[in-house]
Amino acid sequence: MKQQELETAYEMRKQEIVDAWREFLRFPSISSDPAYASECERCASWLAAYLLDRGWSARVEPTASRPLLIAVKEGDPSLPTVLFYGHYDVQPVDPQELWKSDPFEPEIRDGRVYARGAQDNKGQSFAAVNALVLSAEGPGPHPTFKILLEGEEESGSRALSACVERLKEDLKADVLMVCDTGTTGPEVATITMGLRGILNIEIALTGLKKDLHSGAHGGAAPNPANELIRLLASLHDENGHIAIEGYYRGLREPTETDRRLAAASDISEELYLEQTGALPRGGSRGFSIAERVGFRPSIDINGLTAGYQGEGPKTVIPARASAKFSARIAGGQSARRCMELIEDHLRRGVPEGLSLEIVYADIGGEALLLSAEAPIVKMAEKVLRSLTGSEPLYRWEGASIPVIPILVEASGAEPLLVGFGLEEDNIHAPNESFSLEQFRKCFLYVGMFIDALCER
Amino acid sequence: MKQQELETAYEMRKQEIVDAWREFLRFPSISSDPAYASECERCASWLAAYLLDRGWSARVEPTASRPLLIAVKEGDPSLPTVLFYGHYDVQPVDPQELWKSDPFEPEIRDGRVYARGAQDNKGQSFAAVNALVLSAEGPGPHPTFKILLEGEEESGSRALSACVERLKEDLKADVLMVCDTGTTGPEVATITMGLRGILNIEIALTGLKKDLHSGAHGGAAPNPANELIRLLASLHDENGHIAIEGYYRGLREPTETDRRLAAASDISEELYLEQTGALPRGGSRGFSIAERVGFRPSIDINGLTAGYQGEGPKTVIPARASAKFSARIAGGQSARRCMELIEDHLRRGVPEGLSLEIVYADIGGEALLLSAEAPIVKMAEKVLRSLTGSEPLYRWEGASIPVIPILVEASGAEPLLVGFGLEEDNIHAPNESFSLEQFRKCFLYVGMFIDALCER
Repeated sequence: MKQQELETAYEMRKQEIVDAWREFLRFPSISSDPAYASECERCASWLAAYLLDRGWSARVEPTASRPLLIAVKEGDPSLPTVLFYGHYDVQPVDPQELWKSDPFEPEIRDGRVYARGAQDNKGQSFAAVNALVLSAEGPGPHPTFKILLEGEEESGSRALSACVERLKEDLKADVLMVCDTGTTGPEVATITMGLRGILNIEIALTGLKKDLHSGAHGGAAPNPANELIRLLASLHDENGHIAIEGYYRGLREPTETDRRLAAASDISEELYLEQTGALPRGGSRGFSIAERVGFRPSIDINGLTAGYQGEGPKTVIPARASAKFSARIAGGQSARRCMELIEDHLRRGVPEGLSLEIVYADIGGEALLLSAEAPIVKMAEKVLRSLTGSEPLYRWEGASIPVIPILVEASGAEPLLVGFGLEEDNIHAPNESFSLEQFRKCFLYVGMFIDALCER
Repeated sequence: MKQQELETAYEMRKQEIVDAWREFLRFPSISSDPAYASECERCASWLAAYLLDRGWSARVEPTASRPLLIAVKEGDPSLPTVLFYGHYDVQPVDPQELWKSDPFEPEIRDGRVYARGAQDNKGQSFAAVNALVLSAEGPGPHPTFKILLEGEEESGSRALSACVERLKEDLKADVLMVCDTGTTGPEVATITMGLRGILNIEIALTGLKKDLHSGAHGGAAPNPANELIRLLASLHDENGHIAIEGYYRGLREPTETDRRLAAASDISEELYLEQTGALPRGGSRGFSIAERVGFRPSIDINGLTAGYQGEGPKTVIPARASAKFSARIAGGQSARRCMELIEDHLRRGVPEGLSLEIVYADIGGEALLLSAEAPIVKMAEKVLRSLTGSEPLYRWEGASIPVIPILVEASGAEPLLVGFGLEEDNIHAPNESFSLEQFRKCFLYVGMFIDALCER
């Protein structure tokens, strides 16, 4: 269906869709709290029924944790198969007392739906699901649609990640659509072009039987805290580059187009200072903010623990010093290889006399990097230009959504991440909401993209 | 009086002295707990009365905190004036339930007196005080004796340090005797040849308004924890030397004699490993353990605090990272100058975007370094050889007793630190005790040294 038809159809069905959306929002499908496990199951069943009622195949697929909703609507096999991924689970609501209305009794005020999950991700995904339903009902041929809504995204997607292998047939697709990101304002949509991967590591240096007196032993005993900071400092050189041999091997440099597009949505140093309190002087010297965050790896210490942390001095050599750090890896890098290089580097740097304890070394996820020249990106660009009347923004995210690269791998699909969320939606916070207008835009984008795909 | 006469006199007075010592021990003169402030005053008054009864001038000198006992016995002005320093205050007793007898009701078991302070420092100082009393009563001329017993040593000697200026006349002396240290066994005495000075510093790096997401900001935001560890690592070079420009200026190298004497009481790498759990690989490469601890400065991180310290990962860039560290300074270095150099070095290393907060930067005390060739050291050596039948050990302590350099400066005296404390005395711990035999040795040493001084 063309934009005009989609707009008309939306107007006609709006009341029905919004009512169903509010029903969907009434399930307190909080994944992190086991007390809500049965609500998650009820929510998944409701979704299955919603799609079965509309002529789709749909099932609730059990996992080790919250179940998955898997649905399919067979279409023209000559068209590219579309897999839509989203999640029906939500964040907890506390502090409850800051909510102006019940987080699980959606209320419409000033053109916005207020409820936990109103945007993230029940709102955006329900808009998309309904666009697919409508597209399947349209006159012409439509692609095969697959829908995967998981129930544990807010808790790390572990159960889904663990069962993608056995679901390979269900997930097999050509395009993976995701609407779980944001944009800068209602006048513009944003295409997420990249995600960084993540490694989470905690190490400790040990070796002393107990804390030692820093007078009697200072200069003789190896100090685990002195050595820990030396070891951690060795991860970077004086220009902020990661100083691990071979670490940058395979890293994909941004193309000229990437650079131009990234620059368009880059933030100024002044605005960065205003927002964070500090000038953006972290990371590798000689690269723009957008490039450092989107195209380059970073290693950040997340926590340090050693010795005495109370008021005033205590002259001890601490028996143990530990650090948590996360390594973001960028497009072209391999998470496993980076982890091996980090571990090797650390092991080689342990001074005689002390021992390195690796408390955990978890590969959180691989990086994802799309090409701005990819046909589906070009298609999305055209659709979004037509929808919003302005050029979309291209964003290479510094953060990680580990499940996306896993789904890309399992489905064999090209990913397309477009989001309509806004800062004012207060996701993960009290009084989360989503405007009916952004909900409508998300619906139209998905419908228009499917239409474009049919004409490719 | 000669050794023989002193031994005879001690035997005759032993009962009286030990009874008085036990009376002294009954005062719960705990300086750290304000609840015992009046006990400290009663204890100081008792000491004043003890010396007044024996023909000395004595007074209780008020300070901002616990009072001082100051006493004098005028002697032959042609002889060097002797100032004895000790302390009548004691450590708290907890855990009380581990004491086999009341910590303030001294009990003699197997030739040992059990009580809080039995050794540290009521025992050693009361032995010395009685040796001076006896020496003053002897037949020949004796030096002018001054006694200073403070009531706050276990709490940092701040009140005494603050009033040495106004007490300059009371403290003026040629020799400053202190018996507040230990030795390795009953068969040998130890001369403390040096103490290191100490600086206590806490710094923090700040600048971010709040913790930032390490994905969205990693590689852009300056990470206070990353920068803190880089800054701290810059304090040492790859050989463990302190890498602050000019830091070693003025440092006094050990003489050949120092090296020989220090080596005699040095610990083997195997024993160090057994005692601490780690090989002695800290500090400057290329120096013995004794030299690193006794003659060289060291900087030890005592505590690290940043970001998330709970279980598992949390992907934050912490808004604040802080470190406590202590710098031990060695003979020939100036505490003030070292502090300035450290602060300058840190300030120069602060990266653009972040701020350095110096939480505190306290000069705890100067270093002290005696010469093995000093006449009073030679005299003490001879006395101790005669007393124990073996060569004394020479120890350059890595730790600090800040009040000693202050007293050296205020009195103009040469210090002489000889101690008879043993590991088995359990100072600062439950069931502290001191053997009557070590008490007697301390008494004899002081008397014999005074005798030697008179013959100089």
